[in-house]
Amino acid sequence: DIADAAARLLGSRDLSGRRVLVSAGPTREPLDPVRFISNPSTGKMGFAVARVAARRGAEVVLVTGPVDLPDPPGVRTIRVVTAEEMASAVEEEAREIDLYVGAAAVSDFKPRVAAATKKKKSDEDEEVTLTRTPDILAALGKRFAGKAEAPILVGFAAETEALLQNARKKLAAKRCDLVVANKVGRPGVGFASDRNRVTLVGPGERANIEGTKEQVADAILDWVVPVLEERRPRG
Amino acid sequence: DIADAAARLLGSRDLSGRRVLVSAGPTREPLDPVRFISNPSTGKMGFAVARVAARRGAEVVLVTGPVDLPDPPGVRTIRVVTAEEMASAVEEEAREIDLYVGAAAVSDFKPRVAAATKKKKSDEDEEVTLTRTPDILAALGKRFAGKAEAPILVGFAAETEALLQNARKKLAAKRCDLVVANKVGRPGVGFASDRNRVTLVGPGERANIEGTKEQVADAILDWVVPVLEERRPRG
Repeated sequence: DIADAAARLLGSRDLSGRRVLVSAGPTREPLDPVRFISNPSTGKMGFAVARVAARRGAEVVLVTGPVDLPDPPGVRTIRVVTAEEMASAVEEEAREIDLYVGAAAVSDFKPRVAAATKKKKSDEDEEVTLTRTPDILAALGKRFAGKAEAPILVGFAAETEALLQNARKKLAAKRCDLVVANKVGRPGVGFASDRNRVTLVGPGERANIEGTKEQVADAILDWVVPVLEERRPRG
Repeated sequence: DIADAAARLLGSRDLSGRRVLVSAGPTREPLDPVRFISNPSTGKMGFAVARVAARRGAEVVLVTGPVDLPDPPGVRTIRVVTAEEMASAVEEEAREIDLYVGAAAVSDFKPRVAAATKKKKSDEDEEVTLTRTPDILAALGKRFAGKAEAPILVGFAAETEALLQNARKKLAAKRCDLVVANKVGRPGVGFASDRNRVTLVGPGERANIEGTKEQVADAILDWVVPVLEERRPRG
């Protein structure tokens, strides 16, 4: 739109020539043809990162789960449903990127079996076995560990408790460069809101950011740019 | 909006003086503070019924699960999350109604236990026990069975197979007056679409209807009006 076009003309183009891959939204893990396990992610945070990165000059690919948002202008958008579909799309698109921002709320678990037809009601309780889905961020961390072409990896941690402790754990375990931690379960920020309050947790620093999701996206990219300049100087 | 206002002036007011209760949308059944079991209902069908009933003169209450739709103009809208919350709201609002249209895609099952904090990842499979949620339509059928003040009860049946057979079963089992049956799992109609193709299944008749969700809503109400005139003549 006009705001984006103006920003492209006037604003900082500090990601120009950079390739950025962003994941967004929830995933849905089917129990049967109509029922699934999911979470309340609306995709707004990841879409904001994709939009802002494009505005700042990057070539952006966005992989998103089912959300009610239109493709951001100038962003190649790939729509998926399940964690496995998202993992495949990210793995495929992660070639030759400078930055990955994993803002999707990927389901950690899926039903081991998805029934082929809609389950009929019965008064009996029913046992469902949940099994792990692929860990997309950890797979990228492992794939690029120690490699010269390693992109900057940014993960998100939505936590209901022990926010910083869990974010630091994630930083180490997933071998990523920055974790964007936010506490969920508070009204008005986070899931489904236009605003967000997060803590950026890097290896040696942290910063609290509060604002619209576009402002949070800008803050994340402000952190990324100098790291990129140092680690992956432009040819 | 203007279209609604014009329709109210020009269109049929054949539900004037009638009290209508509509349910819409999915419900969400929590596994923990961020994960839930749900289905892809967007609420469009139920919202269309509420809007069209109000346009045709009814006093309308809409009970809806989590959807991305604004309150329809002139409709008292109550927002809920879980099947139990929806059951309570419907039970409460069902006093002195002429018509109940149960368009919500209520989860039939919920996790027996919802964890208080977000489940941490582990590589172990996990067993979840699913237990039945209240059957809202059957409860209304039972509550009003044989009563002079019984409202017309309209149920929806989203089926992946044996559509008519399951609809007839539902008509009898829930003691309702009409079942709106639609086959799910086809692209372009049903869940998340603006169009729908349904079969109206009454005790002695059936009719295939295809069109926008507003046209389907009008067809349902066209079926209801003469039954209401006969069973519940206006004071």
